[in-house]
Amino acid sequence: MKKIRLKVTIILSLIITVSISVSAFAGNVILIIGDGMDDQQISIARNYLVGATGKLSLDNLSVRSNVQVLTVSDRFPKHPVYVADSANSATSMASGVVTSQGRIGTTAGTDEDVVNIIELAHQQGIRTGVVTTASITDATPAAFYAHTNSRGCQNPAMMVNAEFYPRVFVDCSADLKSNGGKGSISEQLINSGVDVMLGGGLKHFTLPSEGDGDEVIALAEQAGYQLALNPKQLDSIKKGKLLGLFSPSTMPVIWRGESDRAAEHSEMTWPGMIHWSLGEAIVPEPMRCEQNPQFTDLPTLAQMTDKALSILDSDKSDFFLMIESASIDKQAHYRKTCGSIGELKQLNDALDSAINYAQSHPDTLILVTADHGHAAQIVPDSSLFAASPYPIYRPGHLSRIITPQGHIMAVNYATTDFITEEHTGVTVPLMANKMGQGLFPSMITQPHIFNIVKDYLFQKD
Amino acid sequence: MKKIRLKVTIILSLIITVSISVSAFAGNVILIIGDGMDDQQISIARNYLVGATGKLSLDNLSVRSNVQVLTVSDRFPKHPVYVADSANSATSMASGVVTSQGRIGTTAGTDEDVVNIIELAHQQGIRTGVVTTASITDATPAAFYAHTNSRGCQNPAMMVNAEFYPRVFVDCSADLKSNGGKGSISEQLINSGVDVMLGGGLKHFTLPSEGDGDEVIALAEQAGYQLALNPKQLDSIKKGKLLGLFSPSTMPVIWRGESDRAAEHSEMTWPGMIHWSLGEAIVPEPMRCEQNPQFTDLPTLAQMTDKALSILDSDKSDFFLMIESASIDKQAHYRKTCGSIGELKQLNDALDSAINYAQSHPDTLILVTADHGHAAQIVPDSSLFAASPYPIYRPGHLSRIITPQGHIMAVNYATTDFITEEHTGVTVPLMANKMGQGLFPSMITQPHIFNIVKDYLFQKD
Repeated sequence: MKKIRLKVTIILSLIITVSISVSAFAGNVILIIGDGMDDQQISIARNYLVGATGKLSLDNLSVRSNVQVLTVSDRFPKHPVYVADSANSATSMASGVVTSQGRIGTTAGTDEDVVNIIELAHQQGIRTGVVTTASITDATPAAFYAHTNSRGCQNPAMMVNAEFYPRVFVDCSADLKSNGGKGSISEQLINSGVDVMLGGGLKHFTLPSEGDGDEVIALAEQAGYQLALNPKQLDSIKKGKLLGLFSPSTMPVIWRGESDRAAEHSEMTWPGMIHWSLGEAIVPEPMRCEQNPQFTDLPTLAQMTDKALSILDSDKSDFFLMIESASIDKQAHYRKTCGSIGELKQLNDALDSAINYAQSHPDTLILVTADHGHAAQIVPDSSLFAASPYPIYRPGHLSRIITPQGHIMAVNYATTDFITEEHTGVTVPLMANKMGQGLFPSMITQPHIFNIVKDYLFQKD
Repeated sequence: MKKIRLKVTIILSLIITVSISVSAFAGNVILIIGDGMDDQQISIARNYLVGATGKLSLDNLSVRSNVQVLTVSDRFPKHPVYVADSANSATSMASGVVTSQGRIGTTAGTDEDVVNIIELAHQQGIRTGVVTTASITDATPAAFYAHTNSRGCQNPAMMVNAEFYPRVFVDCSADLKSNGGKGSISEQLINSGVDVMLGGGLKHFTLPSEGDGDEVIALAEQAGYQLALNPKQLDSIKKGKLLGLFSPSTMPVIWRGESDRAAEHSEMTWPGMIHWSLGEAIVPEPMRCEQNPQFTDLPTLAQMTDKALSILDSDKSDFFLMIESASIDKQAHYRKTCGSIGELKQLNDALDSAINYAQSHPDTLILVTADHGHAAQIVPDSSLFAASPYPIYRPGHLSRIITPQGHIMAVNYATTDFITEEHTGVTVPLMANKMGQGLFPSMITQPHIFNIVKDYLFQKD
């Protein structure tokens, strides 16, 4: 009996030793963020791209967890707020700190800078990259390299009295260099030392830097960045520091609804004006998705990912790469189902690039997650109560998408009747390739993603 | 080198042998279904019950997967339908077969009976139980023991020309015994041989059975069932076959909104009638949750679970127990946030009972899942666009719940303006205790749940 126990102990010790030495082989981390990519958005895209029973590449990742998205009030930083924006949720992931809506790498209420994973990586000689289909200065990428009190302060001209969206003004005067701050987000990007930065947002770099005659883009060149403004230029650059800016602001999406249609209101026939139980509800006509003609002379997210991986890999050190598919969210705000589906396809294709890279670099941890939930919901195209003689009115906007298989998928947007929809407060998925096995439990809070990345990057022999 | 390889091979063989012998120790399965319990519903309940950073017992289960809910058209059984009802999704889980909305254990279009897990269990001498807060004849429990073309056929009087809900009639004449069928759902339950059946739905048993003067409940007693109609009677029964029916139909829920308030429409001030950009949106007053005074002399779901476990455990054979928290869905249809939260608490408490049981019976596999998504969404109480000077109208119904921590959580219901909300087509979570480790990948289709249960129950030494 004792002999068996001894053997078992030896075996267990061996297993433990092997597993410890495996986890000590740290390597690269690729963090892929789908902005607003909750399970509704993934289900919509899956139904369209591979059918209801199909699997996307992200569905096939071997590890899955669920993420509690946390936000606090700026006025009362101990009070929870139940819905996030991309700025505070990206700060959670980049810095492990829960903050308030709109903040980029700063604390709620007290406006203190919090250290982010890219700053830590650079201290350890680890190279970094940031890739997005948004402006490279937009909230999600910005939280990985910058610190401002507002996501609106994307360039030197947007610091004081800046109109962030119609009739809403932000004030980043505390972040002005003349006030001892670090300047606008585009200026901070140039000083961040990030090795590869690819996305949209050229307009934020073609303005004079604060207290300097030179445009921000000129400062980037002085700092050693090679510039790429189109796919050809992107293709030609093989190593070194790279700044690619392929559109003035957000990059155009690959798909759109027929004739750029968005979700639309249903209409009621006139008897419905008298009483809800009368008349008929007239729903929007179904539509197909089509190529977006504005997507020309632009690299795809997968092409940007391939380039970032090839440049970051050219050095012998490990790297951290953040990749964002931004317009799942932006198109959902504007109720454009086909736009969101196309952007989720871009994310899935970029993931394929990452998986392909990890096949030859098996120490690469791939994480796929979302920053927050969004408005869209798949609803029955023929109501569950269609047998009822009463009309079924949908109070918000509805799009009826004809899938490639020829069936109609109805998507409801009804969090506001405003020009833009709200985010929602649902948990979001976290998926990982097999290198993520055992690194985290089946449910985590969003700031824990920072710890997962940090522990993996810095746990060296 | 060869020696090391040999050692490694021996160790690996040992590990494989150990893992095979572990997986061969099959045992009990407890399948807990939250009706309509998607991640929005869980997030709503979590925020209320344990706070935004807290964890429910279901969050702490060690294994997590994601489930594709599948439905097909009854007319074209190869065509996908993107949103399920509880009948077809429960048929997926009970029988591993994708069918059309409203069907109980029968095939889409062709109306053929499909074998369910309880029938298979009985063939193997495995005891079974069905526990629910709905009528025991409602769609989810029914799919585990019955076969009808419509979920509406719950009792002998609801077979032909039966009004299932206002002005909607179902026809189960093909299921009449006189037509060679198996009769109504309550009649099929009596003949099913299920050992423990607890829930609501007494009214479906106090009617004469088809072709027989006796009420269905009398037939139950003739078949050897002990009856329990209140918690005291439930408490007194210690072993044998048990039928507990604690309310005429769905059991009242434990919680409700203040004065039974549901979500309400927002209102606009009169300038809003002229143009959307004018006036102000007036949102419903916040509310607290309170005890539902109708919940009296009733067992909780956890108490029913404890009784079912104690009776099923009294025999030496393994068992299969399905537990449903039904009114997460039913309360969400009627936009009653507090009702859904209370029912999710009931599920979580029942899970605690199951976990407690599994501690002394470690061969027990616990699965927790949902049947389909639902309408409710957590939206910002103060809009993301609140800084805008324009009013933000929410087109559907909104409830603003004051959490025990004193903060307001806003919940949006806007899939219809009808008396009841729709389901949604999102994937749903699947969680399992540690016995579920390695049994399924990070994403499965809903019919695969049937295979997981079957393989675990029947894989014996």
